[in-house]
Amino acid sequence: MTVPENRQFRLKARPTGRIERSHFDFATQPAPEPGPGQALVRVQYLSLDPTNRIWMSDMDQYMPPVAIGEVMRGGGIGVVMKSESDRYQVGDHVMGLTGWQDYCLADEGENAMAVLPANLPIPLSAMLGACGMTGLTAYFGLLEIGRPQVGETVLVSAAAGAVGSVVGQIAKIRGCRVVGIAGGEAKCRYLLDELGFDAAVDYKASDWREQLAAATPDGIDVNFENVGGEIMEAVMARMNLFGRMPLCGMISGYNSGEPMRADFSSILMRRIEVRGFIVSDFMDRFPAATQELATWYLEGRLKHQETVIDGLEQAPEAVNLLFDGGNRGKLVVRVSDD
Amino acid sequence: MTVPENRQFRLKARPTGRIERSHFDFATQPAPEPGPGQALVRVQYLSLDPTNRIWMSDMDQYMPPVAIGEVMRGGGIGVVMKSESDRYQVGDHVMGLTGWQDYCLADEGENAMAVLPANLPIPLSAMLGACGMTGLTAYFGLLEIGRPQVGETVLVSAAAGAVGSVVGQIAKIRGCRVVGIAGGEAKCRYLLDELGFDAAVDYKASDWREQLAAATPDGIDVNFENVGGEIMEAVMARMNLFGRMPLCGMISGYNSGEPMRADFSSILMRRIEVRGFIVSDFMDRFPAATQELATWYLEGRLKHQETVIDGLEQAPEAVNLLFDGGNRGKLVVRVSDD
Repeated sequence: MTVPENRQFRLKARPTGRIERSHFDFATQPAPEPGPGQALVRVQYLSLDPTNRIWMSDMDQYMPPVAIGEVMRGGGIGVVMKSESDRYQVGDHVMGLTGWQDYCLADEGENAMAVLPANLPIPLSAMLGACGMTGLTAYFGLLEIGRPQVGETVLVSAAAGAVGSVVGQIAKIRGCRVVGIAGGEAKCRYLLDELGFDAAVDYKASDWREQLAAATPDGIDVNFENVGGEIMEAVMARMNLFGRMPLCGMISGYNSGEPMRADFSSILMRRIEVRGFIVSDFMDRFPAATQELATWYLEGRLKHQETVIDGLEQAPEAVNLLFDGGNRGKLVVRVSDD
Repeated sequence: MTVPENRQFRLKARPTGRIERSHFDFATQPAPEPGPGQALVRVQYLSLDPTNRIWMSDMDQYMPPVAIGEVMRGGGIGVVMKSESDRYQVGDHVMGLTGWQDYCLADEGENAMAVLPANLPIPLSAMLGACGMTGLTAYFGLLEIGRPQVGETVLVSAAAGAVGSVVGQIAKIRGCRVVGIAGGEAKCRYLLDELGFDAAVDYKASDWREQLAAATPDGIDVNFENVGGEIMEAVMARMNLFGRMPLCGMISGYNSGEPMRADFSSILMRRIEVRGFIVSDFMDRFPAATQELATWYLEGRLKHQETVIDGLEQAPEAVNLLFDGGNRGKLVVRVSDD
């Protein structure tokens, strides 16, 4: 085959505030040639996540920041076009850190990509969402750190987002009262009517604090935290004794460059457990959890919602949707056709 | 016997900032007469603790605040003078919430006071300190929430104080590298020379941040937090992946009346577990833990240090020593002789 062109976003400058196309070089070069033990992968879907914003910055973070000049880091799914590795067969769908580009190389060893089973009864993009890393993030954060009990009240912020929507649905499966915080009436209706939440709080409404109080008459036992800031503080002030708070993200603070401060006093007085995590902390248990998520999905108990943006060239601006509340469910960029 | 006089501190006004004698009425009245199932206790030692300051305020807290007009709440040890209960014998030493007064009544049932064993080989005041509630606070916070492993670095703030000094000594017994933060050179020397800490950081020195960095070359695995504020934030910024942070107190914030805010980002990025607690959360395990503390004490592995203030009338002003760093080890008021 002729060598295809590979478009790449390379980080040019660290954004302060919103992400602009001008923070990147969008360069074209020939796709790389796989060496021994490698495969060439055509990227199909990119997963856009709040962590992309963190990686662009040089704030304290759990992986090294993307270096200036480096291809922007990002998760995705692709198809193997050419292989010099026994691990990858041409036509295999693979998932991993593809980067923001049309083509990437899959390696063996530590940085190998996951090969998806053939004839998967689940759409590829759902493997980035409810049945993939996003679903696993919700699954482990809620079940391992939140440890919800039947009848307890579970609150989740950014509830109409990729992780939040799965958290709420799993909490319902586990017999909890589920309250979601989301922006705008349409999203709140979606939580109640489509996802089966028990109550929704519209943080864009001027009476959101009253809505929060009304939605949690028995307090809050588990707060799955995605947002940070004043909403997190208001939620923490309503937590019950011995509440648990999986800290998944604080998206409201990523653009500011300021310390993400909040009141610790309820942690002390209510004896709350706050624990930060990232999904890879639970990597050894991915297979069984993925199986459970896929089963729920196929049984119709776990819905996958997504917002698809077409075209690799849209990736930088599209990340801002996560911070503006512009997406519903999983945000992906379609880079090429299935 | 003639009815003795009972002096009592009753809360008159909630302090803002420092505690003054004028926040209390200091009234004298006849000691109460024990009814059926009660005993009259002469108070010997009062335990002064940061929580006294919390109880005087109306901030969000784990017990109801002391009401205006009520006898100030406080823990202590006393001796039974008269008994109408099979639980208490005249001459027994008892421990519990005596209140800030010369005499109190001991009840049966839920609010019963603990009867100390006769011929205890441990000084009475140590039963309020290293071998009592203070020691238990250190014990459960460190071992249950901190879960220190051999060779890990344990940091404790207010390290020369009642709880902090026990935390550090238990961490040494468990084979950890122990770093204490305390105010002034004398306290730092005490940590190193008397208590066997590996390093000490003087927060009153202008270079305390550099001292902290130098004292924790491998980061911090467990932060036993007593202080809050900017010291807590600086410590959290040096915590290792999967660090644990028992949140015992935030004494730097109790006088201000302001929210006790600090940066949450290291909780997220380093996947730290922060958990608030109070010692009574572990009440069902007090007997075995007290036994272990007493054994360490009698073996000379756990030292009890105390600062004794003479006279009930000193109690209000004496609490301020906890906030000024004016005490070393356990702060008690001697109300009457053993």
